[in-house]
Amino acid sequence: MSVIDRLGKKLSSSSAVMRLISNDRVMQVATGIMDARGRFEAAAERASEAWSILLHGHALPTIDPALEGGDDVVSKAAPKSPAPAAHVATNGAATNGAAAHATTNGAATNGAASVEATTTEAPKPAGPGSAAEEKLAQQMASRTSLSRIGGRDVFEKCYKFMTADNARAMGVYPFFRPLDFNNGPEAQLEGRKVIMLGSNNYLGLTTHPKVREAAKNAIDKYGTSMTGSRLVNGSMRLHNELEQKLAAYHGKEAGLVFTTGYQVNIATISALLSNKKSVAVIDKDDHASIYDGVRLGQAAGARMVRYRHNDPDALDQALSELDTSEGALVITDGVFSAQGEIANLPGIVSVVKKHKARLLVDDAHALGVIGPGGRGTAAHFGVADQVDLIGGTFSKSLASIGGWLVGERKVLDYIQHFAYSFLFAASAAPPSVAAAMAALDVMQEEPERQEKLRENFTYMRNELRRLGFELGKTETAVIPIYIRDDLRTVMMWKTLLDEHSIYVNPFITPGVPPKQQVLRTSYMATHERHHLDRALEAFEKVGKKFGVL
Amino acid sequence: MSVIDRLGKKLSSSSAVMRLISNDRVMQVATGIMDARGRFEAAAERASEAWSILLHGHALPTIDPALEGGDDVVSKAAPKSPAPAAHVATNGAATNGAAAHATTNGAATNGAASVEATTTEAPKPAGPGSAAEEKLAQQMASRTSLSRIGGRDVFEKCYKFMTADNARAMGVYPFFRPLDFNNGPEAQLEGRKVIMLGSNNYLGLTTHPKVREAAKNAIDKYGTSMTGSRLVNGSMRLHNELEQKLAAYHGKEAGLVFTTGYQVNIATISALLSNKKSVAVIDKDDHASIYDGVRLGQAAGARMVRYRHNDPDALDQALSELDTSEGALVITDGVFSAQGEIANLPGIVSVVKKHKARLLVDDAHALGVIGPGGRGTAAHFGVADQVDLIGGTFSKSLASIGGWLVGERKVLDYIQHFAYSFLFAASAAPPSVAAAMAALDVMQEEPERQEKLRENFTYMRNELRRLGFELGKTETAVIPIYIRDDLRTVMMWKTLLDEHSIYVNPFITPGVPPKQQVLRTSYMATHERHHLDRALEAFEKVGKKFGVL
Repeated sequence: MSVIDRLGKKLSSSSAVMRLISNDRVMQVATGIMDARGRFEAAAERASEAWSILLHGHALPTIDPALEGGDDVVSKAAPKSPAPAAHVATNGAATNGAAAHATTNGAATNGAASVEATTTEAPKPAGPGSAAEEKLAQQMASRTSLSRIGGRDVFEKCYKFMTADNARAMGVYPFFRPLDFNNGPEAQLEGRKVIMLGSNNYLGLTTHPKVREAAKNAIDKYGTSMTGSRLVNGSMRLHNELEQKLAAYHGKEAGLVFTTGYQVNIATISALLSNKKSVAVIDKDDHASIYDGVRLGQAAGARMVRYRHNDPDALDQALSELDTSEGALVITDGVFSAQGEIANLPGIVSVVKKHKARLLVDDAHALGVIGPGGRGTAAHFGVADQVDLIGGTFSKSLASIGGWLVGERKVLDYIQHFAYSFLFAASAAPPSVAAAMAALDVMQEEPERQEKLRENFTYMRNELRRLGFELGKTETAVIPIYIRDDLRTVMMWKTLLDEHSIYVNPFITPGVPPKQQVLRTSYMATHERHHLDRALEAFEKVGKKFGVL
Repeated sequence: MSVIDRLGKKLSSSSAVMRLISNDRVMQVATGIMDARGRFEAAAERASEAWSILLHGHALPTIDPALEGGDDVVSKAAPKSPAPAAHVATNGAATNGAAAHATTNGAATNGAASVEATTTEAPKPAGPGSAAEEKLAQQMASRTSLSRIGGRDVFEKCYKFMTADNARAMGVYPFFRPLDFNNGPEAQLEGRKVIMLGSNNYLGLTTHPKVREAAKNAIDKYGTSMTGSRLVNGSMRLHNELEQKLAAYHGKEAGLVFTTGYQVNIATISALLSNKKSVAVIDKDDHASIYDGVRLGQAAGARMVRYRHNDPDALDQALSELDTSEGALVITDGVFSAQGEIANLPGIVSVVKKHKARLLVDDAHALGVIGPGGRGTAAHFGVADQVDLIGGTFSKSLASIGGWLVGERKVLDYIQHFAYSFLFAASAAPPSVAAAMAALDVMQEEPERQEKLRENFTYMRNELRRLGFELGKTETAVIPIYIRDDLRTVMMWKTLLDEHSIYVNPFITPGVPPKQQVLRTSYMATHERHHLDRALEAFEKVGKKFGVL
């Protein structure tokens, strides 16, 4: 079944789309945008994940690194054998860079390395239109399995990466679009004012006078940078003050400030999982930074076990399969960034306690959004005292750049002495630390912002559902509109932007798993009803135009 | 030979030190500061690196992750067998987290995992005073091999980490000291004004009016943060402008701006080394961020080969031993951050070309310091067109926080689409990008700053040598004063700070290899001669007091 066929009758009858798809070059490029999985998806329902990896290699990055149905995803519905031998086989087929625990030769990591072993006997997709699909698959395989390209020149894969260039040439490239400015609910993109429905500036504090003022004052006092790591010359009083504030706010013993949110996870996880007796037990939909943290642990011998998304029973099973001598760190997003879904922390906490494991919650998208006083997921459920480590970023509600971690002082002290990526990165800059601190203050001084945010995203969730859009399990400021098709997602993104000046983020494969393509929207306390109503009007028109409604 | 003995007669005769070392508790804590390698160093000259790793585990972080004499360090003096089998054994014993390429079970990574295999037959150090040393070594092993601690609770190692707490209790903890403010050549630490000889703010631009102004203007225009990744909503015109400026400045096709300098290396290396046919060939003294980038590559099956520090012959041999089908990325610091030494790029470039490898140079400590117009190491040697990728940070001369990479457009395009740590980190903040851009402008508008910097570090290098200090191979703004003993280094650091208000950075084991302990000093264009002369006076006094002069 071709892409064109899959777009469906309703979509194909749109004259704009007809013009596009009747142009071979356009289709060629549009297919290019989708890179690996888009075309593959329809036919490959029964193909194994291994074949998918073979075909697509590293391909485009995964926004949400989880892939449906990865073999090592533990779930109650499909329990795995707890025998050690089964573990070996299971991990050997792990997707998404899950380095095999007990395989030899480091094979089967990141998809790429498993290619040689599987090339000849890879299972074929057995979908409809298999001859055409097979030809296409061959083209795709040669074009997109970039990360597995060997040979002396490590740049060869770069020269062969054409997807982005093709999409740019056609004006349908949706990423890295620079904004001329950004004032919160509105921004300017290439000279045109747009309504911003794609920001994580949940409380709208990046332009708050107090936040701006605090950042500027810090520049006056400390200069624009400390030009050093926290370890040596890069620490300033401001770091310590913010750490104390964060700890007090969360009711934890201590806090630690990082230079980026990404760094929080790679530093914390790599420091805690430092030997082969360590296991990262993670929700398969965890953020990319958690995956990278686990990868650093894997280089030290640790292993990774993924459990079915937001499923405490699956977590229970995964932990049951560990040896009791293995160190277990369970890691979950508090609010999942692609879905806007809240993690079932009461269930997870209870399982973690049962197995005497430790729990790290990445609350990047929860702080300022849910929980009393915006304290996030654990507070939302009243289980903050039962979560060992809570981390997050300054780059969402806290209106800045950097990251934070709260927990026991001894644990944070260990991390700050043992994590390379904390120790050897320059410290968070004075304006960034000051902005985050001011934002934390404003957040508490102006609780009405959180109320307004909740009002906004609840309104949009209700109205979008009323229009007939499929939104998944969102309960927060992130509302994904499920489109479940690459080309349609990109065309809708482009139409929303070009014809309606609505800025949303298209998440397409392989950035998301097959059939999980969405227009990801997110809302702010500073959106007014007129912004939202204009957006709803546009969504309705575009949804109808592309056959989603 | 005990620590006290090793301090030497001259040192022991100092009354202050005598008071200290006659106090058992002080000595106990002082020994604690040194954690693993300090005590071990004297006795372990002939002990293998494997034993050292066994003993110390991850221990304290390495400021300079290179360890002397690691088994996989390729050098001409001690050529390795090029047979594949030898490779396996070699890599299996790799230090510093070099994940074993072809070993089974992921053993021997990061020191920690190899413990079980080597505990019983580990070679003993055969230095002087071996009975006492052995007892000490046992104590150390139980106390400091933290990262290898197994068991269900991954926090157990944190609770057992006492070194920092002990040192704090005694007031001799030298790290994470927060500054009250920092104006460049002077700063305030706990209420006292100090002369800052520990900053990387080489051109003194963090407080330059134009740099401050640019950062503040960006806050007015864009707010304090873009609150998103470059991929989606986090890009602004300012990023693109700076990328173009950086590319033009370096005479390269394209530039890419990152959120931290650390991120430059982990993103670039992990994107380029994405399969088991990829090899990172690195100088053993490369920066920690390069090691972490390689570790991420290792999780995808890539392997690491380290060559003897700054030795093109050793690099030649390392590359000769690769299979011709293996992708080779050579990575070196341009200026080594601990030593201030300039990489022998002409020699390295010639070897890289001979083997058709690719070369990435981390010029963090070179930009603004060496080369025409401050263009760094490759420009300094006139080989910029022969270096494939040059990267660096904003957190030194560029007076900000963030990172940069220049090279071929296609290669950067690949990295920006394939590196998790680029894609899924929030973009560099408006004030940080603006500050870096202004600093790059000022750097070119005011070339006299670079001249003044060179004058300052040349003066200090000459004067410190004249006084009799040992400075190694420094030719740049980083001047390490070799002390080669942990306790002495810490005592000198403390005396310089407490009695002379001179701020320097103590690098002790295991942050640096045994016998490489230094007081690391660094200089700025904004130091005046009176700052430097006051420092020289203090260095002379303290050097004499502690028997270094």
